[in-house]
Amino acid sequence: MENFTFVNPTRIIFGKSTEDGVGTEIKPFSSRVLMHYGKESIRKSGLFDRICRALDKEGIQHVELGGVSPNPRLSLVREGIKICREKKLDFILAVGGGSVIDSAKAIAAGVPYAGDVWDFYMRKATIAAMLPVGVVLTIPAAGSESSNGSVITNEEGSLKKDAGSELMRPRFAIMNPELTFTLPPYQTACGAADIMAHVMERYFTNARAVEFTDRLCEATLKTIIDHTPRVLADPQNYNSRAEIMWAGTIAHNDLLSTGRVGDWGSHMIEHELSAIYDVAHGAGLAVVFPAWMKRVYTHDVARFAQFAGRVWNVDYNFEDPTRTALEGIRRLEVFFHQIGLPVTLQELGVRDDRFSEMARKCTERGPVGNFVKLGRNEVVEVYKLAV
Amino acid sequence: MENFTFVNPTRIIFGKSTEDGVGTEIKPFSSRVLMHYGKESIRKSGLFDRICRALDKEGIQHVELGGVSPNPRLSLVREGIKICREKKLDFILAVGGGSVIDSAKAIAAGVPYAGDVWDFYMRKATIAAMLPVGVVLTIPAAGSESSNGSVITNEEGSLKKDAGSELMRPRFAIMNPELTFTLPPYQTACGAADIMAHVMERYFTNARAVEFTDRLCEATLKTIIDHTPRVLADPQNYNSRAEIMWAGTIAHNDLLSTGRVGDWGSHMIEHELSAIYDVAHGAGLAVVFPAWMKRVYTHDVARFAQFAGRVWNVDYNFEDPTRTALEGIRRLEVFFHQIGLPVTLQELGVRDDRFSEMARKCTERGPVGNFVKLGRNEVVEVYKLAV
Repeated sequence: MENFTFVNPTRIIFGKSTEDGVGTEIKPFSSRVLMHYGKESIRKSGLFDRICRALDKEGIQHVELGGVSPNPRLSLVREGIKICREKKLDFILAVGGGSVIDSAKAIAAGVPYAGDVWDFYMRKATIAAMLPVGVVLTIPAAGSESSNGSVITNEEGSLKKDAGSELMRPRFAIMNPELTFTLPPYQTACGAADIMAHVMERYFTNARAVEFTDRLCEATLKTIIDHTPRVLADPQNYNSRAEIMWAGTIAHNDLLSTGRVGDWGSHMIEHELSAIYDVAHGAGLAVVFPAWMKRVYTHDVARFAQFAGRVWNVDYNFEDPTRTALEGIRRLEVFFHQIGLPVTLQELGVRDDRFSEMARKCTERGPVGNFVKLGRNEVVEVYKLAV
Repeated sequence: MENFTFVNPTRIIFGKSTEDGVGTEIKPFSSRVLMHYGKESIRKSGLFDRICRALDKEGIQHVELGGVSPNPRLSLVREGIKICREKKLDFILAVGGGSVIDSAKAIAAGVPYAGDVWDFYMRKATIAAMLPVGVVLTIPAAGSESSNGSVITNEEGSLKKDAGSELMRPRFAIMNPELTFTLPPYQTACGAADIMAHVMERYFTNARAVEFTDRLCEATLKTIIDHTPRVLADPQNYNSRAEIMWAGTIAHNDLLSTGRVGDWGSHMIEHELSAIYDVAHGAGLAVVFPAWMKRVYTHDVARFAQFAGRVWNVDYNFEDPTRTALEGIRRLEVFFHQIGLPVTLQELGVRDDRFSEMARKCTERGPVGNFVKLGRNEVVEVYKLAV
């Protein structure tokens, strides 16, 4: 087990009707808030009005900025920074899923920074101060509600890049599983794939003697595998929505990283897909992750066999553990298909003519991944395995 | 799943040589520290000197107060409060295990309180302010390094009582598994039983639809079951010491309580044992927990069968699930024996002549437990099942 530090101060307020307390949560921090959200659907659902009422009740003024899209755009982040500066807002409330939260974090980092916020994403500057961010979560997927990261797409040049800082962790995350009842099946499935990917990125590690976190990872994966088909069959199943929502947070709050270094190559490889083709991140991961596995499993057959055995209940093949390992990858693909996700680039609608360009951009900061380091040519091989 | 809030802001600094950074951790909070510890063995081991050097390096003045015993005493807590007030110390550094940390928390709560610190333990007052507490952990067991509770024994009347507050969570916990290499086998085993008890108290719940936290509980139990025999056979096994140490913190940081109400009857029943007989808490729990299980398992055979199957790999008996449930309890007893712990009061050296007195004191605030509520007579039954 490797040395580590771990702290996650995000306050989780979980359960039915918890969004009604959002004003009380914000009050210790601010009375002038930017309310950041995505589509207008939160108005139709009544969530928008409930949150406004909860803010009004505590005398919290707010300015609204909607329009966050999947793969959130730098241009909207810049607009948010401008609004906050002009109207002297000092708290960002994200109402939505990972895209909205990541956009909110970027705005919060940009407001007190004299330079261009994109500097943080290009590793040209380190975040030294941020406005506080709070979250009302509506999509369990990205884990951004308690994570230390943010991913933003710069439309000029189709660049999708991440920034990270312990300062980025939201002060609170309000999580009501009822708010996820109306998530369409495809988006629900994409969320499940994203959550599973966050766990699998950490699971495939070269660190030894990490049994406890292995088992926590396996617990999280089994929960998602068990409950995703249930919510697809019954979207208003509160308990299964709740299991997925809470597991989604733990999957990415860094508890599962303790004592180990994760891989994260698949995320980098997927980012290039969604930067160019604007595919849903979870769907991209469902395609990339099995391909990545096929490329790297020989690096540590025992670990892939453990994944197969403990997560997918594959019987261990004592004569040929490679078969066990491969059967685990196959079951992952079957599961993704079962919940309605693509597992090939073809199903995703992506042609094979830009692999080289994507691989170049993916590796421009150097090889990606830690479990196995993949250079430009190896990344092309992963894309080819995903065809 | 039930509504919950969860936040644990304790910063974990885990791994080899991490205690050398204790001065850096304290500096943001204080330059005048009470260093609280137990036996003089930390001087012999060199730990004491290393910590003094780390404090000196950051210019942090400190006053020492040793002598904390297992089942930490109110009298020493009062002495610590007096010293802090006289010498104007404003930070308590606990160097030790659960007893030292619990004593440190009591001192930290007592210093800014005008009344008697025992009020908090008798539920006569609520903690409104505390000095900050930091921890260098040397015994993985109590989980007090990031928990919100403290248990203190009032020698006058053999009263062992707990107090709790979110303010009680330490600001940081430095956890170096190497510091546990010298723990004697019995104390190592007692720690394992304590950790397992913290998980089992949460596992046996009437809450439904808590699969994720069930699986996290099972992961934690399996880790302890796997690694405790290894460290007993090889006390300097760093990786197994590390697994136990980290699992011991997660067992009691309240993550495993999310969405559910735990039982905690066994802890209350054991407290009366250790208050009178001064037995090691973990050994007391190894005796009480299986007896408690035998008293209550009929309340929810399915849950006990799940415990048997998932934690102890007992094959499910489809014709008679009760047999599965009972086999799980039996394997728990076998495990406790295997690691050198008693599972009967007789082995613990406790006679059967004070059951009624213990049961009366145990239930004086009302019935104990939530999974099954046990009144005075039922608590006597548990003691009898432990004979």
